[in-house]
Amino acid sequence: MGNEYKIHENLTSHEIDFNYTLPLSCMDFLEQIKNLKEQFRSDSKFPLPDNFENVVISGMGGSGIAGRIFQELYHEKPIIVNDGYEIPEWVNASTLFVAISYSGNTEETISAATRAHSAGATIVKISSGGKLSKLPGLQVTVPGGVQPRSALGYLLAPLLNSFGLLSTARDRVYRLMGSVDDDNNFLKSIASEIAGSQLIPLILTLPGFTSTGIRWKTQFNENAKLMAFSLNFPELDHNDIMAFEKSYLREKFFPIVIGDTANKQVTKRVRITSELTGLKFSTIRPRGESLLEKVLYTIHCGDYLSYYTSLFRKLDPEDVGIIEKLKSELAT
Amino acid sequence: MGNEYKIHENLTSHEIDFNYTLPLSCMDFLEQIKNLKEQFRSDSKFPLPDNFENVVISGMGGSGIAGRIFQELYHEKPIIVNDGYEIPEWVNASTLFVAISYSGNTEETISAATRAHSAGATIVKISSGGKLSKLPGLQVTVPGGVQPRSALGYLLAPLLNSFGLLSTARDRVYRLMGSVDDDNNFLKSIASEIAGSQLIPLILTLPGFTSTGIRWKTQFNENAKLMAFSLNFPELDHNDIMAFEKSYLREKFFPIVIGDTANKQVTKRVRITSELTGLKFSTIRPRGESLLEKVLYTIHCGDYLSYYTSLFRKLDPEDVGIIEKLKSELAT
Repeated sequence: MGNEYKIHENLTSHEIDFNYTLPLSCMDFLEQIKNLKEQFRSDSKFPLPDNFENVVISGMGGSGIAGRIFQELYHEKPIIVNDGYEIPEWVNASTLFVAISYSGNTEETISAATRAHSAGATIVKISSGGKLSKLPGLQVTVPGGVQPRSALGYLLAPLLNSFGLLSTARDRVYRLMGSVDDDNNFLKSIASEIAGSQLIPLILTLPGFTSTGIRWKTQFNENAKLMAFSLNFPELDHNDIMAFEKSYLREKFFPIVIGDTANKQVTKRVRITSELTGLKFSTIRPRGESLLEKVLYTIHCGDYLSYYTSLFRKLDPEDVGIIEKLKSELAT
Repeated sequence: MGNEYKIHENLTSHEIDFNYTLPLSCMDFLEQIKNLKEQFRSDSKFPLPDNFENVVISGMGGSGIAGRIFQELYHEKPIIVNDGYEIPEWVNASTLFVAISYSGNTEETISAATRAHSAGATIVKISSGGKLSKLPGLQVTVPGGVQPRSALGYLLAPLLNSFGLLSTARDRVYRLMGSVDDDNNFLKSIASEIAGSQLIPLILTLPGFTSTGIRWKTQFNENAKLMAFSLNFPELDHNDIMAFEKSYLREKFFPIVIGDTANKQVTKRVRITSELTGLKFSTIRPRGESLLEKVLYTIHCGDYLSYYTSLFRKLDPEDVGIIEKLKSELAT
């Protein structure tokens, strides 16, 4: 991509100089990121079936993550996220099956929705069109025109609205995301460290932020073209910690804790894990009142962080050429 | 640990010279690995409640993985694996709640089981004793004396037996695991490559082998004291692939595909992913007839692979001192 960068790669302060002229495609992508808060203003929703005993949400990549986030916010019935061609064998007439594909042409999700319909489930589809929109079931059509990973609000808001989870939080979500749009210098600083030292982001999540960690990971993958991984407290204290103490970890990884928790034992775990391994964790503390608000605030921080990391790496954050190539080769 | 190693670190052939005198603690641990097939001969089981609508299995680390493996083999009702202090809010009298902690003293699992009992769930506990065994609910007591991660058969067999999943496969599982005990030179060879070049194992799983990938990852963490990660086809084609094409990946990671699949699109994905990114994948093809047999065979391969990797790294595979230290600091 054409560009005029003036990036100071080794700056670590929160007040770094970050002047550059963005190439057009990046401008577009930055607009997409800024657009996210608008997407959550939508009151689009679908009617819930009278009786359902469990929920399955099927989706891949930037579409599937909406299901994972919803899974962590919805507590009324058993809910499973499905990321493949098949569906669980227990899916039946008492299942509410939500298929999410922003393009509507994701072959795994089309396959899964077709099987769920045969199994008698109530089908809801969320897409901007595509083949999925023609399948049996209730269609929720959302605006097209952005990358799937930039359409998180379009895909998630109908779920939250239908289950009554967004209404009272809508205005605060808008303001919280807007606050990240307005001030994200602290994320530029972290991005500079990650890109400058070729580090692998290692996202360590607190309870309630597992899906946020996955979103961060996939945004690093797609925007910054970096391997990235997400591990969860307290589970990581039972296995990964055995590698944390090794010096090679400090040279290769950038560990960053996201989320907050009222559980004192988990808070203690973070401190002791750091002490015992000698690892210093960067931390992003969420703003907001409810878990929903905190999750969406933190997700938006990850959007910017991965975006800036790609710019520091002089890569086009919007480019996902390999994924497009793979899809077209699969179709032949 | 005292030892006399003669390890040829740079050998990559399948016929490597691997003569060394094992220190006593390693002998013990190797015996634990070899003991695994005996554990699956158990016909220990618990009665299922008359009516239950969903299953929650709660456990951490080497105990929790039994739940994750069972989740992938059980298809009759919605099943969730829980790895924390809390439980899903929808847990109620129609939930079968299985708490697994080999020691019986895992604080997250004790907390979760206590909450599930308050919520009215039917409680089954699987442990070798400990505080968990004193909590309300049906207790399945298994033999103690090995590391939790070496007790997989003790913890998993009662689940498989109770749901009728092990009976016809028991003899074949024994022979398949025994075949890995008898011939695992091909795993020594891979271990030598991983240890020699300080690579991060990157386990790429085919559908049905997600929990196997997690088991491999955690065995690398605990036995070989290595960071390791597990990614799943087809999901990885929607995000991680954007980083696969970068040259730094080849220098830092050791990608290895595990599992097999009848789904031709998934098979095609593996080939195209390799072609488009220029990454060569090592592959472990499972032996066995059913998914259960293939999973247990592949898991046992991972046990040896992580064990040999630790020896090549001149580390004690059994040592999990940091985890023990953390637990004792948490208790203060």
